Amino acid sequence: MSQFWSPIVHSLTPYVPGEQPKVDKLIKLNTNENPYPPSVKVIETLKQVADDKLRLYPDPNADALKQRIADYYKVERNQVFVGNGSDEVLAHTFQALLKHEKPLLFPDITYSFYPVYCGLFGIDYLTIPVNDEFAININDYPQESGAIIFPNPNAPTGKLLALEDIRQLLREHAHKVVVVDEAYIDFGGTSAIALVNEFNNLIVIQTLSKSRSLAGLRVGFAIGHSALIEGLERVKNSFNSYPMDRFAIHGAIASFDDEESFQTTCQTIIDTRNELTNTLEKLGFNVIPSAANFVFASHPEFDAEEIAQKLRDRAIIVRYFNKPRIDQYLRITIGNNDENTKLCAALKEIIC
Amino acid sequence: MSQFWSPIVHSLTPYVPGEQPKVDKLIKLNTNENPYPPSVKVIETLKQVADDKLRLYPDPNADALKQRIADYYKVERNQVFVGNGSDEVLAHTFQALLKHEKPLLFPDITYSFYPVYCGLFGIDYLTIPVNDEFAININDYPQESGAIIFPNPNAPTGKLLALEDIRQLLREHAHKVVVVDEAYIDFGGTSAIALVNEFNNLIVIQTLSKSRSLAGLRVGFAIGHSALIEGLERVKNSFNSYPMDRFAIHGAIASFDDEESFQTTCQTIIDTRNELTNTLEKLGFNVIPSAANFVFASHPEFDAEEIAQKLRDRAIIVRYFNKPRIDQYLRITIGNNDENTKLCAALKEIIC
Repeated sequence: MSQFWSPIVHSLTPYVPGEQPKVDKLIKLNTNENPYPPSVKVIETLKQVADDKLRLYPDPNADALKQRIADYYKVERNQVFVGNGSDEVLAHTFQALLKHEKPLLFPDITYSFYPVYCGLFGIDYLTIPVNDEFAININDYPQESGAIIFPNPNAPTGKLLALEDIRQLLREHAHKVVVVDEAYIDFGGTSAIALVNEFNNLIVIQTLSKSRSLAGLRVGFAIGHSALIEGLERVKNSFNSYPMDRFAIHGAIASFDDEESFQTTCQTIIDTRNELTNTLEKLGFNVIPSAANFVFASHPEFDAEEIAQKLRDRAIIVRYFNKPRIDQYLRITIGNNDENTKLCAALKEIIC
Repeated sequence: MSQFWSPIVHSLTPYVPGEQPKVDKLIKLNTNENPYPPSVKVIETLKQVADDKLRLYPDPNADALKQRIADYYKVERNQVFVGNGSDEVLAHTFQALLKHEKPLLFPDITYSFYPVYCGLFGIDYLTIPVNDEFAININDYPQESGAIIFPNPNAPTGKLLALEDIRQLLREHAHKVVVVDEAYIDFGGTSAIALVNEFNNLIVIQTLSKSRSLAGLRVGFAIGHSALIEGLERVKNSFNSYPMDRFAIHGAIASFDDEESFQTTCQTIIDTRNELTNTLEKLGFNVIPSAANFVFASHPEFDAEEIAQKLRDRAIIVRYFNKPRIDQYLRITIGNNDENTKLCAALKEIIC
């Protein structure tokens, strides 16, 4: 508390990201990082970026990266917005497109940064309960609202909403912005980017942190109608001219240039997820069907927080949320085969 | 214009950064970039950062970098805030510390991003005219105000305010935040960081873009009382958990580790600035005494915009602002010796 703060600061409840422990040798399954390294071509490119040109500003518009993403998704460059991780893209989206007289809608169980953004920008919001299987029912979203946002697959459940449902939602809420936050879409879902030329009220947000193994580089992007993108650009250009450094711009381009590495990594994680789901179910866990690089699981006989603590005692960290409706679940990131094996062995010890 | 924009977006007038032309072989003296490369140790470090660890998130708090900056400036780690370039640090500062019932004050001739931030965050402001020599007179700053911000040296004039004046201003406005924006301080000024333990209402903001030749890396920081820094952290953690990527964190640390390279570069630019000032004065220019890596100059007989255009015809870009009081001035970045020689030759051609 300080007399010098702007009044809004007193009321903020900042987001708390998953722990980033500073010791090595932990099996870190708590922040949905990719267990596999980025493409060797990306690393190669990044080494080349480390040169004397760093004295120069990057392109404030990051046009080369926008063009590469536009080509990849077969849209126009002015339909692409880029930012310092999808969290920054989301922040600009909340400020530029989601503050209206009527409340913003999002699921009650969802990415816990959403209410934080609302606090920062003074956005009125209403949460809509997901059903008992954690599914979003689009018919529950009332017409009396200013905009809608949800992750797909949802976080922290991993539950996917079908593209047909999203199409129907867009049709029924044609006069408000609908944001589909697709941080995990590459692990088995179909992107709503397929719909951006059909609906002028749709924004799709993605990140290179998960499926492209580049959490350490901070690159996210949004794709939508050019008028929505222009709204984002206006806010971005009133906030920070150069959010994308030279590494972010060129590393991200290189990532989209190596389709094979990307596909192989995603498929391996999907396969491991299926194996892990089987093992967890054999151990008596209830596992929500996941389209993400994590599973969300609960055990009818063992307390989730206690399991998390016992895993931590064995140097394995998973994410536990002490929140209504999900306080008996663990969110477990899909690790590599070795991590997966060790996790399963530890869980067997704890449960059997 | 779009029906989908949040109302605030319609009224924004985004900042327009200096042009970043995509052709080579231009002499680029328009965005105050450092003509000399970053330390070879920084480049070396950055090449090492390009590895498989990029799959992992960076430390959301960038503690190692904060500690390095704290050690360098002999303050505590909780007195340091870091961000994606000083523009992002400024953005968070405007939102976290400068929005009050009474208006924010800044000079009429100053960094033109300030009114843009005010527009974005709905901050009421009042500009205080600098005098005819472009000097800030601290006695002109009224008590009836919510906070004060100014660059030192000022932009785009390069004019320095003495530390004693800043101390007096802090004393006379002890109940409001005073922000000293020191993007150019390393080129001959004395930093107000010396005063942060004396005044709990002072925030000093710096960047690695200019004096440390790292515009392409995007690192800025703020130093002040821990309660002010906490206000910034609260806003930052409600906006983006991980603004500093792995390159920014480790490259910046390496830069503070190479004092010799830093000092040599700054001194060379100061020497070149003095030479350029002499030459310009011989050509009849009026040059404002500069403590920055640029000079601000006007010619009594030649129109500034016309000179800028004629320089551009010769593949030299300088910055021209079509704004009241300064529309007969050019802001010329200090280049290397070769660029300096070519600039002077071109100006001789244009003027003689």
